[in-house]
Amino acid sequence: MSDNAPVRRRKATSNQDSGSLRKNDQKTQSQYQPYKDAEWGFINHWYPALFSNELAEDQVEGIQICGVQIVLRRVDGKVFALKDQCVHRGVRLSAKPMCFNKETISCWYHGFTFNLESGNLDTIVGNPDDKLIDTTGITTYAVEEISGMIFVFVREDDFPDEDVPPLSHDLPIRFPESSEEYPHPLWPPAPSLMDENAISRGIHRTGEANWRIACENGFDNAHILVHQDNTIVQSNNWVLPLGIRPVSDDCITTFEEEGGPKGLMQWLFTDRWEPILENKKLGVKVAGVNSRFYRTSVVMPGVLMVENWPEEHIVQYEWYVPITDDTYEYWEVLVKVCATEKELKDYEYRYKTVFKPLALHGFNDCDLYAREAMQDYYADGTGWDNEQLVDTDVSAIIWRKLASRNHRGIAKPAKGSQGSIKSSSIRLRNITDGKSPGYRVDKIEE
Amino acid sequence: MSDNAPVRRRKATSNQDSGSLRKNDQKTQSQYQPYKDAEWGFINHWYPALFSNELAEDQVEGIQICGVQIVLRRVDGKVFALKDQCVHRGVRLSAKPMCFNKETISCWYHGFTFNLESGNLDTIVGNPDDKLIDTTGITTYAVEEISGMIFVFVREDDFPDEDVPPLSHDLPIRFPESSEEYPHPLWPPAPSLMDENAISRGIHRTGEANWRIACENGFDNAHILVHQDNTIVQSNNWVLPLGIRPVSDDCITTFEEEGGPKGLMQWLFTDRWEPILENKKLGVKVAGVNSRFYRTSVVMPGVLMVENWPEEHIVQYEWYVPITDDTYEYWEVLVKVCATEKELKDYEYRYKTVFKPLALHGFNDCDLYAREAMQDYYADGTGWDNEQLVDTDVSAIIWRKLASRNHRGIAKPAKGSQGSIKSSSIRLRNITDGKSPGYRVDKIEE
Amino acid sequence: MSDNAPVRRRKATSNQDSGSLRKNDQKTQSQYQPYKDAEWGFINHWYPALFSNELAEDQVEGIQICGVQIVLRRVDGKVFALKDQCVHRGVRLSAKPMCFNKETISCWYHGFTFNLESGNLDTIVGNPDDKLIDTTGITTYAVEEISGMIFVFVREDDFPDEDVPPLSHDLPIRFPESSEEYPHPLWPPAPSLMDENAISRGIHRTGEANWRIACENGFDNAHILVHQDNTIVQSNNWVLPLGIRPVSDDCITTFEEEGGPKGLMQWLFTDRWEPILENKKLGVKVAGVNSRFYRTSVVMPGVLMVENWPEEHIVQYEWYVPITDDTYEYWEVLVKVCATEKELKDYEYRYKTVFKPLALHGFNDCDLYAREAMQDYYADGTGWDNEQLVDTDVSAIIWRKLASRNHRGIAKPAKGSQGSIKSSSIRLRNITDGKSPGYRVDKIEE
Repeated sequence: MSDNAPVRRRKATSNQDSGSLRKNDQKTQSQYQPYKDAEWGFINHWYPALFSNELAEDQVEGIQICGVQIVLRRVDGKVFALKDQCVHRGVRLSAKPMCFNKETISCWYHGFTFNLESGNLDTIVGNPDDKLIDTTGITTYAVEEISGMIFVFVREDDFPDEDVPPLSHDLPIRFPESSEEYPHPLWPPAPSLMDENAISRGIHRTGEANWRIACENGFDNAHILVHQDNTIVQSNNWVLPLGIRPVSDDCITTFEEEGGPKGLMQWLFTDRWEPILENKKLGVKVAGVNSRFYRTSVVMPGVLMVENWPEEHIVQYEWYVPITDDTYEYWEVLVKVCATEKELKDYEYRYKTVFKPLALHGFNDCDLYAREAMQDYYADGTGWDNEQLVDTDVSAIIWRKLASRNHRGIAKPAKGSQGSIKSSSIRLRNITDGKSPGYRVDKIEE
Repeated sequence: MSDNAPVRRRKATSNQDSGSLRKNDQKTQSQYQPYKDAEWGFINHWYPALFSNELAEDQVEGIQICGVQIVLRRVDGKVFALKDQCVHRGVRLSAKPMCFNKETISCWYHGFTFNLESGNLDTIVGNPDDKLIDTTGITTYAVEEISGMIFVFVREDDFPDEDVPPLSHDLPIRFPESSEEYPHPLWPPAPSLMDENAISRGIHRTGEANWRIACENGFDNAHILVHQDNTIVQSNNWVLPLGIRPVSDDCITTFEEEGGPKGLMQWLFTDRWEPILENKKLGVKVAGVNSRFYRTSVVMPGVLMVENWPEEHIVQYEWYVPITDDTYEYWEVLVKVCATEKELKDYEYRYKTVFKPLALHGFNDCDLYAREAMQDYYADGTGWDNEQLVDTDVSAIIWRKLASRNHRGIAKPAKGSQGSIKSSSIRLRNITDGKSPGYRVDKIEE
Repeated sequence: MSDNAPVRRRKATSNQDSGSLRKNDQKTQSQYQPYKDAEWGFINHWYPALFSNELAEDQVEGIQICGVQIVLRRVDGKVFALKDQCVHRGVRLSAKPMCFNKETISCWYHGFTFNLESGNLDTIVGNPDDKLIDTTGITTYAVEEISGMIFVFVREDDFPDEDVPPLSHDLPIRFPESSEEYPHPLWPPAPSLMDENAISRGIHRTGEANWRIACENGFDNAHILVHQDNTIVQSNNWVLPLGIRPVSDDCITTFEEEGGPKGLMQWLFTDRWEPILENKKLGVKVAGVNSRFYRTSVVMPGVLMVENWPEEHIVQYEWYVPITDDTYEYWEVLVKVCATEKELKDYEYRYKTVFKPLALHGFNDCDLYAREAMQDYYADGTGWDNEQLVDTDVSAIIWRKLASRNHRGIAKPAKGSQGSIKSSSIRLRNITDGKSPGYRVDKIEE
């Protein structure tokens, strides 16, 4: 039974070193200027676009990631992704999908027809001899589909095809391959999206905050208080500590090797982190701490992995995909390897009746609110300079520096992207109609 | 029966010249810089303000055109138009109409009373001896009312009365006067708003796009695809071509004579434009093309005329009246000469049962969506530099240059105009109440 | 019976001097530049925060004044006010109140715990040994609670405690203390919030206009027209004059003594102001003027006092508390001294059945509309330069100069304040949900 008290092997006597790590003075901040600049996200990275079951054969959908409008179409099972903006007058192809064959997608407005593979302007429906044909086109995006998820490599228009890295470079580290380097005695190796028979189940929804705020909340160890009244905690009779703080220089390990994911691992539920059970000043004391244990890591471009959560043999992944500078698509995905039909059926039943309502919603809904609560403070870009951090924020500081060293580009809002002009009349009209701005294209309905 | 295949007299062997017309390089763009600057519209022009039946005797209404707030009042049948902004504290007179006699309109707030003819501050209701009286006033606007429509000359405050041109200079060319110069063998001369017994029927509504985007959509020949699934097309068993392209140097004629409308005529359904019936690359072929024929022209400040549409002896006019930089009032007006009561009754019946639902709504609703779909791309003013045009865009290029040469002024948003500050709290509060920003003043209701 | 025609003792023959007072040329404007700069209000002043009955024992509420987010908590009857923004990650403490004892308030997110008296960071719930503890804190605000109202001294972070003036310096002058200096023969001395047994009854609500626009409307004598159709006027058969204008140099007295309120007194219903009964130009004449008489004064930072209104022995106070640059909290408060239970009960009955519906709503609702109607004109800050004032605007000119001389600071929107970024996604999402931006914090509800 894994829901036991955490193992603690040594007691820290000093937090001097982790304390120095948390310094957030001007010098430290200058080490993560790129992170502070990345309000629209890091570009030239892999991001989840849709769950596989959200894009049926021949379906066309439009989304926006890092300010880039992207149209997806599935043909004979394969998913293609292109810039969702006609070169002619800038309308989104996905607004009213029109496809004449399996090789192309046409613009519904003037018939500009683009090759799904290359993005080339192959023809114009009612103007087949125009000189512009074959001289221009739209950017295409590499697509990978694994275990029920469609990933897109969101790139700048001039990012070379040959430089597109494998998806695995932008996914969490895997087990048991990493078990030697990142051992944890308290649970079996976490599964991975890339495992054979891996099954993903989850949701994605739009949050109204900057993606960095959201991401930092994801791996933040110090906000246990927020979750104390969650049903999943109370129904399991978990008793959470008041907090948890780093007590060792190696409380966090970073990994930045060539040819692999770049990220950090937090050695939670080891003796490198100490649970806080008492606050004498407040006269508050927690007895009989008894909760799930887990470990979190985060890799570029902002992918959380929570091992051993919400149950043994399951892993929770999270993405905080930038849509604009103040909205992100929040992905909460559970992965389990189901080798048999029986395992799959049991997993799905438990997902539906327990994990989705109590973990993905009940537990993580609190995080959604917390991220929004921070947004006003960080919205004008100066929050990073004024926040007052403490030693438990060592994770955020390390992450910001690591991201600044390892990102592949800083996104700028593309012309015409949703949310680059926030108070446009269309947007306000849609709001009048009760349609909040979000992730997907509103299709034209006549 | 007019719904026949179009007549084509010659076959173009080269589109070299019209091809050169469509060039949209930096040099060409510099020729229409004024057009690119006119996001709030061209000022010192005649625009439709209201249908006659929207302003009863003694009624007061407030509207906004080119960022200028205008109040209209009808007295003894005559319509007066003044700036809808009190000189004192800037409130709109139309918000709570107050009139003490037939010569003036008073501000409901402090009683400033303006002469309807001159705009002069004639008196202040409760302060009749103040020195300010007779020393100041508000701008007045010339008004013409013809065939059921009220037109206003929207001018800058210092535009001289004596320079106000006749309304006819800002209306489409007339027939049969122009039949010799602009002959078309396929239909009878189009009627005009200015004809005796001309009757206008139509609608106006607010679109969320820049007026230029809207106007260019109006005379755009290359978006036939958008209308293919319209009920009016299908119910008439029309078979539309895939497209239509210019095949002659004289595909478009411009007219810019002193003392008349400035505009362009597109010689559709002549041999200067070729219907495209096949796209070999896509394997698409249209057989038995059989649709209505028509001809379009556009004159300053953006007035479309569609001859022979939606029926013989009828003409469709359209205006795309700038309200703000991202909203326009879309006017769709059908004009027919009805010499007898019987003709009028028949016309009205057909308008109500066919033209309004199938043409003004069904057919043109597609255009509303298309204009909105372009707006995000052009909203920041750089879309004009990045669009990639083709030879069918010759019309837009000629129009942009013509407008740049012939406009009478570039509007700047007036202080206090609706939409000059888009995210004001009032606006957002109104949106919360479900009131989308638009063309008319919301009257104060207590 | 006080509802008589006003007494007029002398007839002015010249308004030369008051006329010169109203000049609003560039020189005059330069004398109130600080006022023009105060779009977010004057800071370092006392403002009403809540009615006493809006903050029960142990209740926590968040509000915003002058762009400053403030959290209030009542402990053992005493009200504490602190900056409503955690030093750590900037969230509002009031969004999800968490208090472990009577001396502190804790942040619900990471447990930062602040002393209610000093604002000191006393501890962090789950991180009690962090070095940041006792080295930082949040600003506290002085609180006074009198006669059913809670006042807060809204200050800049570095405004010294010892410089906080008494509340009485930011409240209207009192009677009978001031009766000798400010005599008025037509009614008994007005009561005051500070009187023994004074009872306040009233409402507060958010208006969508700048606070200065609102305040100037409050003491504006020249907008009688707006109220002519109010039920309270008609039901009392009052006959209002067309206007009222200053006819004496001493129409307005200012008071700016050290150690007291700074403001102006308008000597209404004396011979220094003349009611206008006829406008010959318009052929309008009022006979039998018969209305309530009253006198208005206004003191810093924008507190209106209407003596003898809406009834003898009652006074109406109004505040126009800046929330943002385009919203204000409109406070309408009636004060009466009720020495006995019977008096209190009678007052409350009359408040509920007459004063609240007919005065605070019916009569003053007109003012709310008028203020909103001005807002667009003044929103970009240039309205002050373009307005054309008349002699009845002498009050506004004097007020603007007086405020410019006597304010204690010009507010700047604090980082993260509601409305400093107006079109944030959260705000737009809330609007989609029908929640207009306003005065109080939306509590997190899970």
